[in-house]
Amino acid sequence: MAATPVWSVDPRTGKQREQVAVEATSGEVDEAVRAAHAARGALADRTARAAFLRAAADLLDEAAAHVIEAADAETALGPGRLTGELARTTGQLRAFADSVDEGSYLDIRIDRPDAGAVPPRPELRRYKVALGVVAVYAASNFPLAFSVPGGDTASALAAGCPVVVKAHPDHPATSELCASLLRRAAVAAGLPPEVVSVVHGFDAGLELIRHPLVSAAGFTGSIRGGRALFDAAAARPVPIPFHGELGSLNPVVVTPAAAAERAEEIAVGLAGSVTLGLGQFCVKPGLVLVPEGADGDRLTAALTKALGETEPGVLLDHRMRENFVSGVRERAALPGVDAPVTPGSGGEHTVGAGYLTVPAARLLEGGAYEVLLEECFGPVTVVVRYGDQSEAGSVLGLLPGNLSATLQLSAAEADGGPGPAAELIEQVTALAGRILVNGWPTGVAVAPAQHHGGPYPAATSHSTSVGGTAIERWLRPVVYQSVPDPLLPAELREANPLGLPRRVTPAAS
Amino acid sequence: MAATPVWSVDPRTGKQREQVAVEATSGEVDEAVRAAHAARGALADRTARAAFLRAAADLLDEAAAHVIEAADAETALGPGRLTGELARTTGQLRAFADSVDEGSYLDIRIDRPDAGAVPPRPELRRYKVALGVVAVYAASNFPLAFSVPGGDTASALAAGCPVVVKAHPDHPATSELCASLLRRAAVAAGLPPEVVSVVHGFDAGLELIRHPLVSAAGFTGSIRGGRALFDAAAARPVPIPFHGELGSLNPVVVTPAAAAERAEEIAVGLAGSVTLGLGQFCVKPGLVLVPEGADGDRLTAALTKALGETEPGVLLDHRMRENFVSGVRERAALPGVDAPVTPGSGGEHTVGAGYLTVPAARLLEGGAYEVLLEECFGPVTVVVRYGDQSEAGSVLGLLPGNLSATLQLSAAEADGGPGPAAELIEQVTALAGRILVNGWPTGVAVAPAQHHGGPYPAATSHSTSVGGTAIERWLRPVVYQSVPDPLLPAELREANPLGLPRRVTPAAS
Repeated sequence: MAATPVWSVDPRTGKQREQVAVEATSGEVDEAVRAAHAARGALADRTARAAFLRAAADLLDEAAAHVIEAADAETALGPGRLTGELARTTGQLRAFADSVDEGSYLDIRIDRPDAGAVPPRPELRRYKVALGVVAVYAASNFPLAFSVPGGDTASALAAGCPVVVKAHPDHPATSELCASLLRRAAVAAGLPPEVVSVVHGFDAGLELIRHPLVSAAGFTGSIRGGRALFDAAAARPVPIPFHGELGSLNPVVVTPAAAAERAEEIAVGLAGSVTLGLGQFCVKPGLVLVPEGADGDRLTAALTKALGETEPGVLLDHRMRENFVSGVRERAALPGVDAPVTPGSGGEHTVGAGYLTVPAARLLEGGAYEVLLEECFGPVTVVVRYGDQSEAGSVLGLLPGNLSATLQLSAAEADGGPGPAAELIEQVTALAGRILVNGWPTGVAVAPAQHHGGPYPAATSHSTSVGGTAIERWLRPVVYQSVPDPLLPAELREANPLGLPRRVTPAAS
Repeated sequence: MAATPVWSVDPRTGKQREQVAVEATSGEVDEAVRAAHAARGALADRTARAAFLRAAADLLDEAAAHVIEAADAETALGPGRLTGELARTTGQLRAFADSVDEGSYLDIRIDRPDAGAVPPRPELRRYKVALGVVAVYAASNFPLAFSVPGGDTASALAAGCPVVVKAHPDHPATSELCASLLRRAAVAAGLPPEVVSVVHGFDAGLELIRHPLVSAAGFTGSIRGGRALFDAAAARPVPIPFHGELGSLNPVVVTPAAAAERAEEIAVGLAGSVTLGLGQFCVKPGLVLVPEGADGDRLTAALTKALGETEPGVLLDHRMRENFVSGVRERAALPGVDAPVTPGSGGEHTVGAGYLTVPAARLLEGGAYEVLLEECFGPVTVVVRYGDQSEAGSVLGLLPGNLSATLQLSAAEADGGPGPAAELIEQVTALAGRILVNGWPTGVAVAPAQHHGGPYPAATSHSTSVGGTAIERWLRPVVYQSVPDPLLPAELREANPLGLPRRVTPAAS
């Protein structure tokens, strides 16, 4: 059987650019995983690992022009956005290198023995070890930051886990280029190149999740694809953790007082957030609760103006464009749903931004209206007009899990004054992993305290995929009981030769 | 349809003692979960939660005589063991109360905003919130410490999660008694009693894991039962985390030097660990690698003597007795397997302890010998005689995941001298969650650094079910981005009114 070619496609024309690879056969997936597994010992060296991550960041920065050109040609995201994404990606690699050096992710805990306790308490020394080979499923919408050199890869490598990436078919050339840079960085740091590899192809992705030597997986993508892989991970003879980010509506609630105070400003901010990256962000606001009445009408009028002024753009691929156009059409056809700015009316390869409106009472009917509670990937949002606080709460009660939830409050409400703010904070905390007030959810800061995740389907686990604690997903605890000092891992030795942070019980007086 | 009665049975006679409950119908499970869910708001009060856990410990201590009598009548574990188990249980409840007060489990992280960063960094304040109702599946072999008032319940309540326990059918009266004490403790602390409830029945257990308002589950039991529930948890429309402890062989490796130095001492220690609690511990050593040759023979001779001197005892129930007897018979029938002390030869209601031996070469044949790699619950262990270090390594390579792994080393090896110790430590670290040198795995200390878990099937997740960090299983992170101080949860406010530990980036100078 001839190998299936993998083409790089220009979304601006729909034309094939070049063949960059072939889909991995079952045997090739097996080979990549075995090679990664064999390389895990080398990755156990924390110093080499940190050097590797920094070298990878440096090589990506040096090749920036080339990388951005490759990514733009395949994704149409534009050099501006991709320059920012590359900076985020290299910043992330360096931040994880710092985490490796600092070592608190090892969560070292030491209990001193207590022979006088009943029962006597033994000495316990605990830290975390790498799980093994991690499968990373790259996203379409971030060819760098959530793909081959992205956060899942960086955090897994930081944890000491070799990585096999299943490349996204929307940017195979970028994936190959980044993989070669990462492998060069590994060699520069004295590690075998097999600590990172890339495979292409849908079937290869399934083979990967089922491979007995794969110990965990990270995924960013659709609910359908993510759930299929989650199910495969759970059905294995030895199930493995599957950290998937699947989809999110990212509700926004505008209070009556906020609408009264800032209707136009909110509309402009919302339009910017909905159309950023042409609505192809997982944290795009997809459902906006706007009060009925004159202030809400001012908001929608301003939104109509702002969205009406945006230029059409090219989505990541033609399948997405079709899904967007048909998704908008299906939603707009529901009785009671209006489309003040009809999205999807771009040219042959482009789409325009827009929004839909629906009365809350309709949404609360359920049935066919449930489609409005599903993410529609692209530059569109659904404005739900609500009567009172109780009706807004009922709509929030319909929502599945989300990555983010945003409140637009008046100055007095934000200041803790009377109003629905406290109750809304409580309601959205139950629904989402990140809560914002008077901001917009797009632009997820990569920072130590960041959390990118949320109740299902936003995420399939309670771990975070962005920020300092993302590394925790690829580790498991091991405790050493009464193990003599010379036999302990260096991280746990009494003299603390690596100078790592540790919690000791009882604390030294 | 008449309700199915739940009987308390005396394992010493096989006779029914009394009917203590009925199996929960589907409607009753729904009612218990809804009542628990409705009570979750009250549990959000950390002060009340800590008081509740301490009150529960106090009430259990006050009712000690009654609790121990009930548990002994149903489990035959004996007052000595049960007194220790109760102390462990109340100690655990109080330790989690201390954790609630101390607050580091909230993992509070604060990133200061940085308007000068590219892109500008927002303020982020992150902690962890309770998941919601937790289903706890109680174990047969710990009617207290891994049942209604056990570690899963205590850690879930400490996290702020209401609990519905599926009682184990081996000790329904103890379960009812403990539940009533816990509910009294809740009321004493000003909480609704519905924060804990108990249901009985196999079908009720399945209803529970599938209930939409159940957010996570903890389980201690068999691979078969645990995997069925794990699969049900993963197959839900909204999958939930399932923290199961399923089964473990707990390998022991005796080096030739250790056998030369301490053959008899090791045999006596091993016999004690294998027969402790009549072999009904999840960390019972079930597979022991002993070198071929004279020193190993001395060890087995001493083991024959030690095990031959133990008294028969009563297992937790008659089904377990049948499984034990048939399990030993199946293993002993394999060609090359010897039974120097045949286990299972007790009276009508009792079993005797014993052990089997097999050459490593046979085990490495696989096929029918794979049954020797499965846990056999009860007072039996399998001694595998190995030729050299490489053969011992091959046997370790066959093993599934384990809760513990133990090395018996010579004094010089333990001191870091030449020998296989370092390689063995590395091999068993890949296999287990707890590593011991020159100790025995039974008697899991409840301590801040403890880890009770391990690669599948020892556990279905990488969290720990014993020790300070067990609380982490029932929480998920939430981050607040640029949320004004008056709207933040008290735990995250700038003035730190609750005095909680927090990591701030950048750290204050």
